[in-house]
Amino acid sequence: MISMNETTRAKLRGVSTATIASALYKRGLRNQMVQGVVPLALPKDGKSMVGPAYTLRYIPAREDRNPMTVFRNHAHPQRKGVEEAPAGCVMVIDSRKDARAASAGGILVTRLMVRGVVGVVTDGGFRDSADIAGMNIASYHQRPSAPTNLTLHEAIDINVPIGCGDAPVFPGDIVVGDCDGVIIIPADMAEEIADEAVEMTVFEDYVQERVRNGAITLGLYPPTDESNLVAFAQWRKQNGR
Amino acid sequence: MISMNETTRAKLRGVSTATIASALYKRGLRNQMVQGVVPLALPKDGKSMVGPAYTLRYIPAREDRNPMTVFRNHAHPQRKGVEEAPAGCVMVIDSRKDARAASAGGILVTRLMVRGVVGVVTDGGFRDSADIAGMNIASYHQRPSAPTNLTLHEAIDINVPIGCGDAPVFPGDIVVGDCDGVIIIPADMAEEIADEAVEMTVFEDYVQERVRNGAITLGLYPPTDESNLVAFAQWRKQNGR
Amino acid sequence: MISMNETTRAKLRGVSTATIASALYKRGLRNQMVQGVVPLALPKDGKSMVGPAYTLRYIPAREDRNPMTVFRNHAHPQRKGVEEAPAGCVMVIDSRKDARAASAGGILVTRLMVRGVVGVVTDGGFRDSADIAGMNIASYHQRPSAPTNLTLHEAIDINVPIGCGDAPVFPGDIVVGDCDGVIIIPADMAEEIADEAVEMTVFEDYVQERVRNGAITLGLYPPTDESNLVAFAQWRKQNGR
Amino acid sequence: MISMNETTRAKLRGVSTATIASALYKRGLRNQMVQGVVPLALPKDGKSMVGPAYTLRYIPAREDRNPMTVFRNHAHPQRKGVEEAPAGCVMVIDSRKDARAASAGGILVTRLMVRGVVGVVTDGGFRDSADIAGMNIASYHQRPSAPTNLTLHEAIDINVPIGCGDAPVFPGDIVVGDCDGVIIIPADMAEEIADEAVEMTVFEDYVQERVRNGAITLGLYPPTDESNLVAFAQWRKQNGR
Amino acid sequence: MISMNETTRAKLRGVSTATIASALYKRGLRNQMVQGVVPLALPKDGKSMVGPAYTLRYIPAREDRNPMTVFRNHAHPQRKGVEEAPAGCVMVIDSRKDARAASAGGILVTRLMVRGVVGVVTDGGFRDSADIAGMNIASYHQRPSAPTNLTLHEAIDINVPIGCGDAPVFPGDIVVGDCDGVIIIPADMAEEIADEAVEMTVFEDYVQERVRNGAITLGLYPPTDESNLVAFAQWRKQNGR
Amino acid sequence: MISMNETTRAKLRGVSTATIASALYKRGLRNQMVQGVVPLALPKDGKSMVGPAYTLRYIPAREDRNPMTVFRNHAHPQRKGVEEAPAGCVMVIDSRKDARAASAGGILVTRLMVRGVVGVVTDGGFRDSADIAGMNIASYHQRPSAPTNLTLHEAIDINVPIGCGDAPVFPGDIVVGDCDGVIIIPADMAEEIADEAVEMTVFEDYVQERVRNGAITLGLYPPTDESNLVAFAQWRKQNGR
Repeated sequence: MISMNETTRAKLRGVSTATIASALYKRGLRNQMVQGVVPLALPKDGKSMVGPAYTLRYIPAREDRNPMTVFRNHAHPQRKGVEEAPAGCVMVIDSRKDARAASAGGILVTRLMVRGVVGVVTDGGFRDSADIAGMNIASYHQRPSAPTNLTLHEAIDINVPIGCGDAPVFPGDIVVGDCDGVIIIPADMAEEIADEAVEMTVFEDYVQERVRNGAITLGLYPPTDESNLVAFAQWRKQNGR
Repeated sequence: MISMNETTRAKLRGVSTATIASALYKRGLRNQMVQGVVPLALPKDGKSMVGPAYTLRYIPAREDRNPMTVFRNHAHPQRKGVEEAPAGCVMVIDSRKDARAASAGGILVTRLMVRGVVGVVTDGGFRDSADIAGMNIASYHQRPSAPTNLTLHEAIDINVPIGCGDAPVFPGDIVVGDCDGVIIIPADMAEEIADEAVEMTVFEDYVQERVRNGAITLGLYPPTDESNLVAFAQWRKQNGR
Repeated sequence: MISMNETTRAKLRGVSTATIASALYKRGLRNQMVQGVVPLALPKDGKSMVGPAYTLRYIPAREDRNPMTVFRNHAHPQRKGVEEAPAGCVMVIDSRKDARAASAGGILVTRLMVRGVVGVVTDGGFRDSADIAGMNIASYHQRPSAPTNLTLHEAIDINVPIGCGDAPVFPGDIVVGDCDGVIIIPADMAEEIADEAVEMTVFEDYVQERVRNGAITLGLYPPTDESNLVAFAQWRKQNGR
Repeated sequence: MISMNETTRAKLRGVSTATIASALYKRGLRNQMVQGVVPLALPKDGKSMVGPAYTLRYIPAREDRNPMTVFRNHAHPQRKGVEEAPAGCVMVIDSRKDARAASAGGILVTRLMVRGVVGVVTDGGFRDSADIAGMNIASYHQRPSAPTNLTLHEAIDINVPIGCGDAPVFPGDIVVGDCDGVIIIPADMAEEIADEAVEMTVFEDYVQERVRNGAITLGLYPPTDESNLVAFAQWRKQNGR
Repeated sequence: MISMNETTRAKLRGVSTATIASALYKRGLRNQMVQGVVPLALPKDGKSMVGPAYTLRYIPAREDRNPMTVFRNHAHPQRKGVEEAPAGCVMVIDSRKDARAASAGGILVTRLMVRGVVGVVTDGGFRDSADIAGMNIASYHQRPSAPTNLTLHEAIDINVPIGCGDAPVFPGDIVVGDCDGVIIIPADMAEEIADEAVEMTVFEDYVQERVRNGAITLGLYPPTDESNLVAFAQWRKQNGR
Repeated sequence: MISMNETTRAKLRGVSTATIASALYKRGLRNQMVQGVVPLALPKDGKSMVGPAYTLRYIPAREDRNPMTVFRNHAHPQRKGVEEAPAGCVMVIDSRKDARAASAGGILVTRLMVRGVVGVVTDGGFRDSADIAGMNIASYHQRPSAPTNLTLHEAIDINVPIGCGDAPVFPGDIVVGDCDGVIIIPADMAEEIADEAVEMTVFEDYVQERVRNGAITLGLYPPTDESNLVAFAQWRKQNGR
């Protein structure tokens, strides 16, 4: 089942991929960032995109297997995936980092949006990018790409482990996205990372405020100077965090 | 003669590169997209850029042949091309996908604009990119690039067949651009593709509306379910398309 | 000492990297452009970013040398550099063109801003890119990158000669940035280039105006037609330049 | 079942990948070559490597899932595959074109050899390359690579459709390799391609002999000049082919 | 006319591309090396490959223009070039650095060999590479590539200026190749470069001998120590060079 | 001091880079392989190249600083390094993975050989590659490259920490090379890694023999089946290892 704890989702929506990357780094995970993708559309409420991964795997297309008519088949994995990805999830597509043909286009992304999917990520590209940029579903890709996916990609599997932008993605892993890109949290670490990232965010907000007001970073970030920990404790109380 | 049928131009201005890519795909053409270019400026009326290709070919620059003084020669192909590309065309530049030096800059693109050229495409980069972004001529490149073209590019030919972003471009081919990028339609297919793309666009608009309103894609896109074809016929009548 | 003549700075703030690239080209310097970087934030006054280079050098990170705790060390070159880069300079970071982990993030760039540093350039990527984009300090990178620098980069030196985006950068070289990217002027050429670039800019503004008004470029750009030099002299007088 | 007709195998062992590529091209298949791989070892009898594909799929490795101890698990897909790939097959590994860590090493390739597997192909790299180069099993990779596969690759599936060097590979497809590289023949085309390739090879041998002896290629290759077809028929008879 | 002075050819056959590169560097030419190519076959007499350039230009292939039947046309530029390239020349092919399909194969290279062409260079790849490796004509490419050129390359021009491996090549330029690769000498510099390179080679041979025998390089290479020039003069006399 | 324990050297000469990579992997070091280099010459005794690293750092060349005459300066870092690198060391050159110009050539590598340096590694390329291939000093590079280093590289530092092929290299780190490439062992781990690698090699030799003779790998590699450990103990005794 591709789903997630809503409390964890709420926590993660308030933290950045940079903070999560640091929390994962402390646990020895260095390759969870989806490399080479940029946001086409961000969540409209200014928070991070968060949802469990529903995956789609492409392999290189063989011409005789990929005429336009394949889409008439309701079991075609791309089309099936678009109708079955559960509300609240993020569809993550393994396009082998090849953006020379599209991973999906405006109509399918609209359908995902209407069905409540919260995001769609490919290490390839989307067509109809201007339309998708305006939709109420987060989207990430390498760059726009007009050619139909059949040109280079054959949809072969849904919900198997994949690579996306050199990151490992298992169905159900938690996908988080913001301006910096997309990061994958292993499913069983999500709660722990969410809690730690929320705490880290409080401290980073405090540091950012102090630095904006002229504080030196040495001793403050990280807080090796004891007095900064005291001041931070006070700040938390004053700011109700 | 680099020119095109104005009715065909009008049709193509209303369709997307994605739709054209699919129409070409059905005819076995899979490599007509100029890969790796992004819009710097789009047509101000929100429609697609459309015009016949006028080509400029660069080869790697040899230092002794490319002092600044070469521009004093009125027969220099870059400068000659800028003065001779006919109104209504799109200048397409083969920069060998090398954006480390500029393909052209603000003054020359201004001249193209004033002369009525409707677009300029390079698989390299433009200098003075902030200026060009504000001009009333569509422009596409890989990324901004400040160094003078002489640094790496020697203009060698005008109006010969070229490659641009891995796509073949013959003078007179029809160049179409939108947010997704630039595609090349072989000259002799332009009318047929335009007609088919207009029809496809009507159907896609219908599907998009249906999907936005909650329709399932299976059976609708493509319309394997007969009832959807009936509903589409009605929709066309109602919407005068 | 990393500093620069303020008159030279004022001149360079009014010229483009494209013009500077041409002036350097005339002197045989063809590789001074930092290749592959884009602006994340430009100076708020619309002028070019200008300052002497203060450099930071990264090498690939060895895991055992780069736990999170290294930042507790006040002598860590990245942290030391952020506190010591002088006001008015541009910090230039050699990240070996590897943007898979961040070169720096929001808090450190804030500190640089508060300390009066005018710009920060990396051939890697910044994390917290949305924050940095809004700051009153110019910034250039390849693309956003959330992972902490420790993931791939070990800060090893400050103020040594480096490569950045395939350009040589010596501490004290003058760094200029605009929409087209970032260029490096050798320290001892800065005044001469500034003077020449200001003159070139006056002429280019004249040409641009003429071309916008319909002039042919041949004979005008470059001004091989004597009458254009006469007209230019008049224009300068009329426009007080 | 991963197997093949032995008559077809015998035919294909006598033809080149270049000839097969042309036969596939005539049928509209343009992407069957495994791009970017070179032979480490060729069959010792000087013929082409031929066998049905047995596939192994890697995804990017997540550090917590890939300690050295995973190899203690007899169900680990890499180890299981090495013991189960049938005699006569070619193991084809999807390493996502990433040769920074090994796809396999000397011991496992020895095991494949002993078990009668006729070849092993990866779009990554092999470790112990000097050993493997001397073995009686054909091998193809991008370049040697010493780090254990766990460093970057997690074996996730055996015998699913994969991409290898941008070519689609379905289990049971026929894999052919020679000095030029490796090509994939769709299973259901193998006999037809084998027959055609054998015929083409006879003609190419004839042409090669004629050209070596001074014949002009025009009219001979292809044989648009009728007299060349006549001469070819004689040559076949004389040479018993 | 694609030809060259035979005395110059004889001189250049005895010098290395490294020495020529240095001689060109002294004249400000830094980009004459064909980047990214390796020898498939070297001249059998151990000397450098030398000949004037006869060029062939490919653009990306459009599928409808490139069925197998195009080779029936005797005016097809690839086939025409193979029959017309003069004895003693080097055919240089602009394949846009794309080795995914062949630039030429065994039969055509055999024809070139028989016709007395001394070398063939492509920045793409050759098919039938094992055959070509054994022929008595020098050949350079990026890597072997089995697919027919029609797959990706359309031959469009013969004997026009081209780029090959990022080097500018004009018909008649002198092409020199050895183990290190291929370099292009502008036609009008060939004699001067040949003379200088011969002299440099004598000195380098002397230095190499001295260094093999234990001499320190400082003061010798370059010969800033006067005594080394004296010793060199003696060595020349003794060795008859 | 760039030196190493000779007992450790002897041990490491008998083990492969693959085995060392696994030993480092167990300690959390995943990026010690110099990526993208191949042997030009291997040690003549068939053992691995082993020595402490003596480093040379290049930055991109600025044309005005790099005329041919710079080599007249005895303090030029490349020339100084060649005369000062101690016997027994391996010179490791940071060429920023750019092989478009040489890192060094035949004369300098000869001097290193004569002086007793055991290897030279660059992530760029060597000129005079045919000569160097025959020398009694191990050498590794990306590919041959004829242009003088001045074309793109300015030697700036000796014996500072560098990156080479994406691996961190500190002066004095132990460099090991074989057919698979080059790996860097942190200086303070060298003895421990050497001991462990020797032990691993004994076991791998045992496994290899068993597998060649038909043993199944499951339970043997790794030896999860107790009986294999018993057999291995016997084998060691019998073979005196």
